[in-house]
Amino acid sequence: MIKAGIVGATGYAGVELVRLLQSHPQVEIAGISSVSYEGKSISEVYPNLYEICDDTLESEDKLIDKCDVIFASLPHGLSEKLAKKCVAAGVKLIDLGADFRLDSEEEYQKWYKKSYEEKDLHEKSVYVIPELMRAQYKGQPIIGNPGCYPTSIALGLAPLMQSGVVKDEGIVIDSKSGVTGAGRGLADNTHYPNCNEAFSPYKIASHRHTPEIEQTLSKLAGKQIRVTFVPHLLPVNRGIISTIYASLTAEISAEELHALYDKFYAREKFVRVLPLGKVANLRDVKMSNYCDISVHADGHTGRAIIVAAIDNMVKGAAGQAIQNMNIMFGLKEDCGLDFVPPAF
Amino acid sequence: MIKAGIVGATGYAGVELVRLLQSHPQVEIAGISSVSYEGKSISEVYPNLYEICDDTLESEDKLIDKCDVIFASLPHGLSEKLAKKCVAAGVKLIDLGADFRLDSEEEYQKWYKKSYEEKDLHEKSVYVIPELMRAQYKGQPIIGNPGCYPTSIALGLAPLMQSGVVKDEGIVIDSKSGVTGAGRGLADNTHYPNCNEAFSPYKIASHRHTPEIEQTLSKLAGKQIRVTFVPHLLPVNRGIISTIYASLTAEISAEELHALYDKFYAREKFVRVLPLGKVANLRDVKMSNYCDISVHADGHTGRAIIVAAIDNMVKGAAGQAIQNMNIMFGLKEDCGLDFVPPAF
Amino acid sequence: MIKAGIVGATGYAGVELVRLLQSHPQVEIAGISSVSYEGKSISEVYPNLYEICDDTLESEDKLIDKCDVIFASLPHGLSEKLAKKCVAAGVKLIDLGADFRLDSEEEYQKWYKKSYEEKDLHEKSVYVIPELMRAQYKGQPIIGNPGCYPTSIALGLAPLMQSGVVKDEGIVIDSKSGVTGAGRGLADNTHYPNCNEAFSPYKIASHRHTPEIEQTLSKLAGKQIRVTFVPHLLPVNRGIISTIYASLTAEISAEELHALYDKFYAREKFVRVLPLGKVANLRDVKMSNYCDISVHADGHTGRAIIVAAIDNMVKGAAGQAIQNMNIMFGLKEDCGLDFVPPAF
Amino acid sequence: MIKAGIVGATGYAGVELVRLLQSHPQVEIAGISSVSYEGKSISEVYPNLYEICDDTLESEDKLIDKCDVIFASLPHGLSEKLAKKCVAAGVKLIDLGADFRLDSEEEYQKWYKKSYEEKDLHEKSVYVIPELMRAQYKGQPIIGNPGCYPTSIALGLAPLMQSGVVKDEGIVIDSKSGVTGAGRGLADNTHYPNCNEAFSPYKIASHRHTPEIEQTLSKLAGKQIRVTFVPHLLPVNRGIISTIYASLTAEISAEELHALYDKFYAREKFVRVLPLGKVANLRDVKMSNYCDISVHADGHTGRAIIVAAIDNMVKGAAGQAIQNMNIMFGLKEDCGLDFVPPAF
Repeated sequence: MIKAGIVGATGYAGVELVRLLQSHPQVEIAGISSVSYEGKSISEVYPNLYEICDDTLESEDKLIDKCDVIFASLPHGLSEKLAKKCVAAGVKLIDLGADFRLDSEEEYQKWYKKSYEEKDLHEKSVYVIPELMRAQYKGQPIIGNPGCYPTSIALGLAPLMQSGVVKDEGIVIDSKSGVTGAGRGLADNTHYPNCNEAFSPYKIASHRHTPEIEQTLSKLAGKQIRVTFVPHLLPVNRGIISTIYASLTAEISAEELHALYDKFYAREKFVRVLPLGKVANLRDVKMSNYCDISVHADGHTGRAIIVAAIDNMVKGAAGQAIQNMNIMFGLKEDCGLDFVPPAF
Repeated sequence: MIKAGIVGATGYAGVELVRLLQSHPQVEIAGISSVSYEGKSISEVYPNLYEICDDTLESEDKLIDKCDVIFASLPHGLSEKLAKKCVAAGVKLIDLGADFRLDSEEEYQKWYKKSYEEKDLHEKSVYVIPELMRAQYKGQPIIGNPGCYPTSIALGLAPLMQSGVVKDEGIVIDSKSGVTGAGRGLADNTHYPNCNEAFSPYKIASHRHTPEIEQTLSKLAGKQIRVTFVPHLLPVNRGIISTIYASLTAEISAEELHALYDKFYAREKFVRVLPLGKVANLRDVKMSNYCDISVHADGHTGRAIIVAAIDNMVKGAAGQAIQNMNIMFGLKEDCGLDFVPPAF
Repeated sequence: MIKAGIVGATGYAGVELVRLLQSHPQVEIAGISSVSYEGKSISEVYPNLYEICDDTLESEDKLIDKCDVIFASLPHGLSEKLAKKCVAAGVKLIDLGADFRLDSEEEYQKWYKKSYEEKDLHEKSVYVIPELMRAQYKGQPIIGNPGCYPTSIALGLAPLMQSGVVKDEGIVIDSKSGVTGAGRGLADNTHYPNCNEAFSPYKIASHRHTPEIEQTLSKLAGKQIRVTFVPHLLPVNRGIISTIYASLTAEISAEELHALYDKFYAREKFVRVLPLGKVANLRDVKMSNYCDISVHADGHTGRAIIVAAIDNMVKGAAGQAIQNMNIMFGLKEDCGLDFVPPAF
Repeated sequence: MIKAGIVGATGYAGVELVRLLQSHPQVEIAGISSVSYEGKSISEVYPNLYEICDDTLESEDKLIDKCDVIFASLPHGLSEKLAKKCVAAGVKLIDLGADFRLDSEEEYQKWYKKSYEEKDLHEKSVYVIPELMRAQYKGQPIIGNPGCYPTSIALGLAPLMQSGVVKDEGIVIDSKSGVTGAGRGLADNTHYPNCNEAFSPYKIASHRHTPEIEQTLSKLAGKQIRVTFVPHLLPVNRGIISTIYASLTAEISAEELHALYDKFYAREKFVRVLPLGKVANLRDVKMSNYCDISVHADGHTGRAIIVAAIDNMVKGAAGQAIQNMNIMFGLKEDCGLDFVPPAF
């Protein structure tokens, strides 16, 4: 059994990891940690876990001593120090934060107003969206786990980008995320009466996931890609829908687009390319590691329209992190991830 | 007092008219009609109206006999016959359906699979979004009241279109509507467990509001404009947010865009151009006749991003219809429409 | 015009007062106050009010100087000091907090862990649920405005209590309130992902509204009444439903119960006794000052079951406060309160 | 592997069975049936199942031929005929409908307006809430699976009833169910704009689950028990909270009540008696087979207050049916039922 530790276990991604790992046949949770709740049982903080996981929250140092792999879900800027300790101790790290996602330190500085403090660690880390980059994993001790929006967008656009039929700067991404995406911290915009029966974009063309999105799309396209990215806060608990608009360089029918996607993802269990005519809905991927993609054409204006849906807390965070752990430890990639999305 | 009748009073736009007209100081509801519930009291169908409006639903013919103006909220294809009777009887008509919105019969045929049966009536009707076209009203007996999505989009884009700084075919409109937009009829996609905690686009690049949107934008721009329009079903009761992306022909700062909008709508009570830095939210216009607009720039990709929010049932239907009635009868345009949106 | 001031204007009851008073024909808002936001415009805090009420938040002392009546919406324990200043300045006060609701200081101490500091003020104040106690208003300078739960419960039970057919201690009250009842302050239980798709009772048999409920019921019954009262947090923004169970001393049919209620409330505009067979729903009173009551009998166990629905922020707070102000100033009781509940 | 068939697979309980059985290690779904969708793939009806279960819906007769056990989720009155065929074929049946729940045909007739057509089948069936009645299962070919409300109520009240401290007719049950409880059929009250931001009781003191509730409570108490039972429709997808009020024959402290429950359920995995001071919330049992119970005392009126929370579709339907299947086939009772409720 792999001994796993979760640092930041009382954050939303952290507690989702605790939940999902309960049913992983090859993993045992060896320790959980939280700065704010150290010494308390996690089931006092999250009563859903009562009598299922009543483990006490410890310090992160204790976890390093007894784990084979650490999942870290921390605010940006805090993972490098933990990573250094993990690498020193020969413990693998899967970082769900932003610190190991960007290749370019310059971009990191621009968006996060902070420099890398341990530059060599970034040589030892790799960013992995399994369906697109699993071959990049070559034993690195650190995996930068993708952000939620970038996962839906990269999976949604990869076949188009790689086939080279999209105009540069012709991409508009209108994403909508459930409120868990904003995390556990109390804030005005997530106070129930403020976000129930409400809807609005936020961080318009200025969200920190933008460089991560452009990094992946540029690699896939083999040239610099710029996008307009606007996230919205959706009054549901879970899920992301990204509606993606791409101007095409040539006339391509919906059937051809669909065939392109079908082929691209033919062997991918967790990406479901929906039959032509169906539309992806976040309802149908909730609580699961699936990414549903539907493909549409607007012949009228020469655009492809791609709809990509994921559960932001599973495929967009904890589920994909486990998928990356499976890659790291040479397990079957879907091991422990066979969650069936409910109908309602 | 103006005697008003409501045909289709048990539809969602109809019952909203019943509600809003209760507090109009110059209007008395002289009759209400419904095919499905004829003979019943409207408060049996809508118990919110109990002891406030217990009027009996009659036939539409009875209404014509006793009204100065008829509001019709009918499925497309049914308004012409009613319009003919109204015009013959000297009764004015405000049609909330689709039959008097499009100038081009060809477009109507293309999208609604039906021809105009009373062509001359269309000479006597005019389509009016008051803030943009009130000067077009010259005593016509019929007003085609705008659709909900087109209202938010036309108001959101008018200053940009008129200033001529938008690239042709550079417009992407990603709209999200509350469930009342789908009307009162039972359907799978509006069954509570199917649309609660769910989110999805529908009628992608094929919604019937597209020609109405393009008609208005083309007139404003003085040339043929094509847009990509994708509506989404939002799990809230009321409200529309349209997030509008427009590629600019020149570099324009957010401040310049904002000044353009501020000036364009300086004298319009019902359009609130939010201060730069704020973002329109459907929460803040609910239950009111306001359209909130926020203006944003994505210098990175040369796009303006406009967010327009309305209550789909008020400014997007019944409220705007009353505003049009006020124009028709020479009243102050905001008469009876001073609804203050609630904070929650 | 009556000059009204609102102290605590950025709380939920306060901002609802700001909204409702916009359309009161006899009132002008002369000033608004807030400790936390002094010096800011209220529309910066509540953007729904932008361009409608952009008044600056002042200190409460400034308000006293220029108002005829102050509405105070403060945490318990803070109203006495304000009341003293108001009385000294000859300004009337309507207190939406808990400080002037209980006759018995002992009960106040028991539930609020605090004594009355200005005992004589309590001689000058009166607690008024208009439909039940308007005759108690005899020119007192202070009105204690009822709590939200107690309003629904007192109106729901008054005809039964007064007719004397209910067994002592035979009353169980299961109430459910929308989240605005918890106010504007951020808290774990009102963080969206914690209360969306969630439901739970709270403060079981220990809510501070209990003595207020028992005070009113006891007066109506003419003897000491004890109730079991359990509130629940309902995932909606607005509204309260109280489902009230009362063991009857004699066999009474549903028809007889209904006739009792119908007669009791025959002249009350804001209490709608629904036709037998209908069930009160908070949907149908939202945004209005109505209290809907439906009456049911469980012959099987000898209980009457009463369902009472109000909008917690209108009839349960700001609307009833205005109704009380109308009484205070000799206006028609429904003046400025003709809000029609929407169908959705 | 046990070969299971699901009759009524496109109803809500049916599709939940399809989902849950995907992860049962001892069961293979051998066939699914639906009258309305025969010949279609279930994933066309429920796209969440796409590429997970694309099985074709067949006739129920085909299922009997190839299954060891049939789960039936049918409207009342339709199960007897199926049961007869199953028994004849030596196939076991777990009936999620109402036809095999009541011992008394008289009660069945009274509430369902129908007689038993195959009286002898009722000798061969047994009603089982596993935690309370597993010993009643003695190899009968038919199990009547409990209703959702009765499950929460029986588990919530069992320790009290058995200890004999509750006054006869002193029980009031105020239950609230998510909208999936109303099933998949379209209806006015489950149309999204009618039940979102709405709340109301229904079938007040007249719900068909009443005789099932009283049957279980009476057996536990050893005497005839009558209850007042009022269900409410809650605007969430899943979950039931029953708030249960019981007048006590003696003074019992909260600590004593809690100890009673703790002991009663000490060995039951799926019943979690929460620590004293905590309150059961449907959020914490969603998507799981747990029943959370919190215990409270109202010394003021001599009542115990019990809060019981389940997921109506799991412990209240499909999950409990699988638990009963496990009993039927001698498997560990929790086999395939280790679903961890999510935090959000």
